[in-house]
Amino acid sequence: MSSPTTQSAARESSTTADVAAGVAAEVAETADGAPSRLDGQGEGEAGHVWPVDPEQLAADPRAVQKVLDGRWAHVRDRARDTIPAQWCEPTDHLSTEEHRRVTLERLRDIVPTGEHRYGFAASATGGLGGDSVGAQTVNFEMLGHADLSLTIKAGVQWGLFAGSIQALGTAKHHERYLRDAVELDLLGCFAMTETGHGSDVANLRTTATYDEATHEFVVHSPGPEARKDYIGNAARDARLAVVYAQLVTKGERHGVHAVLVPIRDEAGNALPGVTLTDCGRKMGLNGVDNGRIVFDQVRVPRENLLDRYGQVAEDGTYTSSITNPNARFFTTLGALVKGRVCIGAAALAAAKSGLAIAVTHAERRAQFPKAGGAEGEEVTLLDYRTHQRRLLPLLASSAVYALAQDDVVAELHRVTNPVLLGAAPAPGPQKALEARAAGMKALLTWHATRSLQEAREACGGSGFLSENRIAQLKGDTDVFTTFEGDNTVLMQLLGKHLLSEHRDSLKGAGKIGQAKAVTTSLVDAYAGRTPARAVAGFVGEVVTDISALRQRTEKKQGATDDADPELFDRAWQLRVLEHRERRTLESLALRMRKRAQAGQDGFTVMNEVQDHLVLAARAHLDAWVARTADAAISRAEDERARVLLSRLLDLHVLSLVEAERGWYLERGLITPGRSRDLTTAVNALCAQVRPHALRVVDAFGLPEGWLGAHIAS
Amino acid sequence: MSSPTTQSAARESSTTADVAAGVAAEVAETADGAPSRLDGQGEGEAGHVWPVDPEQLAADPRAVQKVLDGRWAHVRDRARDTIPAQWCEPTDHLSTEEHRRVTLERLRDIVPTGEHRYGFAASATGGLGGDSVGAQTVNFEMLGHADLSLTIKAGVQWGLFAGSIQALGTAKHHERYLRDAVELDLLGCFAMTETGHGSDVANLRTTATYDEATHEFVVHSPGPEARKDYIGNAARDARLAVVYAQLVTKGERHGVHAVLVPIRDEAGNALPGVTLTDCGRKMGLNGVDNGRIVFDQVRVPRENLLDRYGQVAEDGTYTSSITNPNARFFTTLGALVKGRVCIGAAALAAAKSGLAIAVTHAERRAQFPKAGGAEGEEVTLLDYRTHQRRLLPLLASSAVYALAQDDVVAELHRVTNPVLLGAAPAPGPQKALEARAAGMKALLTWHATRSLQEAREACGGSGFLSENRIAQLKGDTDVFTTFEGDNTVLMQLLGKHLLSEHRDSLKGAGKIGQAKAVTTSLVDAYAGRTPARAVAGFVGEVVTDISALRQRTEKKQGATDDADPELFDRAWQLRVLEHRERRTLESLALRMRKRAQAGQDGFTVMNEVQDHLVLAARAHLDAWVARTADAAISRAEDERARVLLSRLLDLHVLSLVEAERGWYLERGLITPGRSRDLTTAVNALCAQVRPHALRVVDAFGLPEGWLGAHIAS
Repeated sequence: MSSPTTQSAARESSTTADVAAGVAAEVAETADGAPSRLDGQGEGEAGHVWPVDPEQLAADPRAVQKVLDGRWAHVRDRARDTIPAQWCEPTDHLSTEEHRRVTLERLRDIVPTGEHRYGFAASATGGLGGDSVGAQTVNFEMLGHADLSLTIKAGVQWGLFAGSIQALGTAKHHERYLRDAVELDLLGCFAMTETGHGSDVANLRTTATYDEATHEFVVHSPGPEARKDYIGNAARDARLAVVYAQLVTKGERHGVHAVLVPIRDEAGNALPGVTLTDCGRKMGLNGVDNGRIVFDQVRVPRENLLDRYGQVAEDGTYTSSITNPNARFFTTLGALVKGRVCIGAAALAAAKSGLAIAVTHAERRAQFPKAGGAEGEEVTLLDYRTHQRRLLPLLASSAVYALAQDDVVAELHRVTNPVLLGAAPAPGPQKALEARAAGMKALLTWHATRSLQEAREACGGSGFLSENRIAQLKGDTDVFTTFEGDNTVLMQLLGKHLLSEHRDSLKGAGKIGQAKAVTTSLVDAYAGRTPARAVAGFVGEVVTDISALRQRTEKKQGATDDADPELFDRAWQLRVLEHRERRTLESLALRMRKRAQAGQDGFTVMNEVQDHLVLAARAHLDAWVARTADAAISRAEDERARVLLSRLLDLHVLSLVEAERGWYLERGLITPGRSRDLTTAVNALCAQVRPHALRVVDAFGLPEGWLGAHIAS
Repeated sequence: MSSPTTQSAARESSTTADVAAGVAAEVAETADGAPSRLDGQGEGEAGHVWPVDPEQLAADPRAVQKVLDGRWAHVRDRARDTIPAQWCEPTDHLSTEEHRRVTLERLRDIVPTGEHRYGFAASATGGLGGDSVGAQTVNFEMLGHADLSLTIKAGVQWGLFAGSIQALGTAKHHERYLRDAVELDLLGCFAMTETGHGSDVANLRTTATYDEATHEFVVHSPGPEARKDYIGNAARDARLAVVYAQLVTKGERHGVHAVLVPIRDEAGNALPGVTLTDCGRKMGLNGVDNGRIVFDQVRVPRENLLDRYGQVAEDGTYTSSITNPNARFFTTLGALVKGRVCIGAAALAAAKSGLAIAVTHAERRAQFPKAGGAEGEEVTLLDYRTHQRRLLPLLASSAVYALAQDDVVAELHRVTNPVLLGAAPAPGPQKALEARAAGMKALLTWHATRSLQEAREACGGSGFLSENRIAQLKGDTDVFTTFEGDNTVLMQLLGKHLLSEHRDSLKGAGKIGQAKAVTTSLVDAYAGRTPARAVAGFVGEVVTDISALRQRTEKKQGATDDADPELFDRAWQLRVLEHRERRTLESLALRMRKRAQAGQDGFTVMNEVQDHLVLAARAHLDAWVARTADAAISRAEDERARVLLSRLLDLHVLSLVEAERGWYLERGLITPGRSRDLTTAVNALCAQVRPHALRVVDAFGLPEGWLGAHIAS
């Protein structure tokens, strides 16, 4: 698929990487014996001095919540008032049918609140719409604290189904369908995925062939692989389907387009030519009726083509304002970007719920009597270091991701809200947004899976019981890592975007210009504002290893547990993450180039660097998240809130670097001593944050009863 | 609890560690400039030469299965004949009541096979018993390929309930209850865990107070914390309970003992004074009726005390052949060791099932058309590197763990079968076995959780559907990491055992003797049979870092992907794991000593090294598993089976070292270049094993239909 683009990307960026390697080698030459700057004094920003007075962390949870709530705080507050605690209670004891019924009922209960209307254009809905993609996305996140079957069904109906009519349809579709779809008088589904192809939408098999004689489209599933699969709302409730199919007119294919196809009559029976089956029981989300659809030459009128970006005239002439089919395809799929941001948001909400339950439990539950303690004196679970390490870094990451997610939503709003209101999509910003959304969806859903696993285990047997909700949260969110795009595929999408950006950043520059560009880029990565010193510093890290070994031996004798204060210097933290971001990308470009030169075919090139591609995407996200969260924290007015959040960011970043220390050590970017300090620092941070864990949970702003767990009630 | 023992452990072993540090420092002195032996030629054992002719890996699955089946192959074959494929089909669509009914029916269907009798003594069951703990454990593992609710219910009835009567009871109990319990005429439960205390059995609150006037025990739950919780069979089926309670006679406490308490009448109604409630729906295992029991002054005759290790005379006089109460407690709990080995076995079975499903699916499922491939040519999922890295190392680990588990079972059989047949327990071997069983239970259950998560994600949306079974396997096994002992607690149990062994190994030796002991121990760890050279070698790794940096830069230019052949030298692999095993333990002992000397209380000492304690236990297990599997492989007759299994062991070990490379790099034990070679080697091994993945799955020996998954049928 990607071989042509990536090969050329490799070709153009590789010279860069050659130079990069050159620079690195020079640096190695000149740096011998240079003192290790990174072991020297850091720039020590306010709030990062170590140790900090514990009192400084005792922030008012409401002040912290104000920062975490971000730009759409008013939307969050409204949801806090309207989502009943009952919706947050476990439902996994219900039968599939009962759960589906309850979920649809609750979906209808949302309508009176009007909160389902945020994301639609007032102009397209007779004044109903709220004209705000941002508000819609944030409201979806809040709904993610309720039963996730309700959340996902809401996403299917309003986000995917009605959202496609809004985004891909024109006035005639808006007038005829949109108001009913928004107000639930018309339930529908989003029929894109097929049995044969999950992530490869461009090659789906369903066809919509125009019949000039009758002015109809014939929608057909050519074989078992073309069967629409895992389609939410299809098994029970949907009457109308937005079907993604290969559009064919006059024997010519025009790529994937969306067509409206009725699948059920008023009585709920499948219409002629439409075969509907039920996907049955699932690991979770059993309140959502996922089904399969097979079309046998189903005819729909020409008007059913959602024709904002591609039109078919009565005589079958195809026209489009977007002449490039590839560009047209991505514009059509542009509607998906909001869905990915929403899934990331729901995943973050679920992770917060699960961690809040586990932390609350760990604050109450005693396990063993305290050794050497008074008779009957016991230790609560959260006093144990292993328990702190299990939960607190993930709690910190949840807060940090919340700050970053607010920026993703803002970017989504900035780029897509004008399109909602009728403007033409801007390919550039849209592409960048899609890459960011793809990566963050992967990052947040992986975070949810990991957080809920730790939360479950941290609650022991209690975590296994439905009454304590974590079981259902796990089951419901587990699919998030693979739907709306498999995470591994999405990370590669981001990685390829970064490669092309990297190439563009060097376009036109000659060899020297490239050299300069790379040197600068390396220098930036190494040193922020003070290049020469720190470039030496980074390599100095390596040459001091022998003395470091001795120091370590002595240090061992002293057995001191104090970590180097510089680890808490935000400038150092960002420098480390940003260096990794740059370095993984440049080495990726080089490896691809070498392979292409060696005559490897496109598939082999991409396949052999696939893990590297994912790594580069991850490194980029980690750096971007830290930068974004740091900026958000420094904007906070309340000082104690700044200090506490800053500590959580320290814990998040140092846990990341600790987990990836092998990578840094391999490249001599940190000394062994510094690497071991990381573990000391993470332990120390856990101990320092531990007394404030419930304060952080409070700052998530989950109203009374929203945890829906017996052990946390 | 552990402060006295651990502090003294620290005190005694610390001198060792001091010396260790000394030696390390000396080594650092002498080694300057020495060539890095680990970068030199390895000892190149047969079957480890790289690259190997791919044909050599094309082993006959039956030959590989013969090795994996191990010592109790005949038990496995019998189970393959008797467990119907239907029992392996998903059951998570069933209602709780229906699932419980089906599970009990199937339990009764096991009786005619006689396979439930392996683990009982013929002498205690009127000739029914098979007199083999080993056979019982292996049969339990095979049952782990069926619906795990059935597996666990079998474990509750035969392993825990009937097993306790067998192990802790005497002739009168065996005669009166055992035959009925074995043949399911008497269903029972094992009432140990309490709401207030999960892992802390010594401090459970339920009391059994002897009444001399009536010659009865009064069983009572003093408060909500004393409620028996998560008790399998208690919610629906059990009529008799083995209740663990604090035994009190003549106002004196004698610690935890087991008493038989009837809880339901023939009609299934709770008996007077017994309150039974249902734990309700769970994340999985819904075919098992977990419940809660509260006793209100329930009276049972004196004979109901299971009195093999502690007796109460009519007048209330307490006697025991084991005078030390602590020793008595651990002897009473000795019965649990088999349960832990069984849970590890079931976890391994579930991991194999899940990976078999995912690998089979990945061999069939095409995702994208092959870039630059012929029209319609597609790539199957398993051709992708990220997919290989996701599944193949776990597939390899499953085979490796199977080889190690066979040794655990053999050890279990050797130590406990004589006790089954009437001999007195041997404290020493029992303690070692318990430590090993605790660690392996944790290792295997964590492996199952991780494998099933990867398997689920690797199957995408299909993995989320109940019809493909992975969903249920995940839900059922998730609790394994925390029941029969929380994994983190179990790993600490092993860690403490290793500390005391370490101390004992140096007992009595003077300072010089200790120094010698440590030097030798270090030398062994460093170098196997060639100490001096390799001691230098290990430290040489560090001092060559600068040149390594240059080499790396040049290597980058060359962009060669060949990993150093020595990585495939089993001697090198074991040396690396064994060094970590030794080093983590010695540094742990030192840290504890320093803290104790600094006047820290026992709790703080243990808590601050808790993560280190778990690390040392893990390092020990990893080395032991590799040694054990290597020995098993070299015993194999079929050469190709040896080569394939040896490759799987390479993949298992190198994935481990790659994951922990940060630790090795921190200590300068491997060079950055060697560290990066690890990733290259793991990628290469994945590519080499990939064509044989289904061969490995076949070697698991799962009969037709046992996968129970639509996508793998």
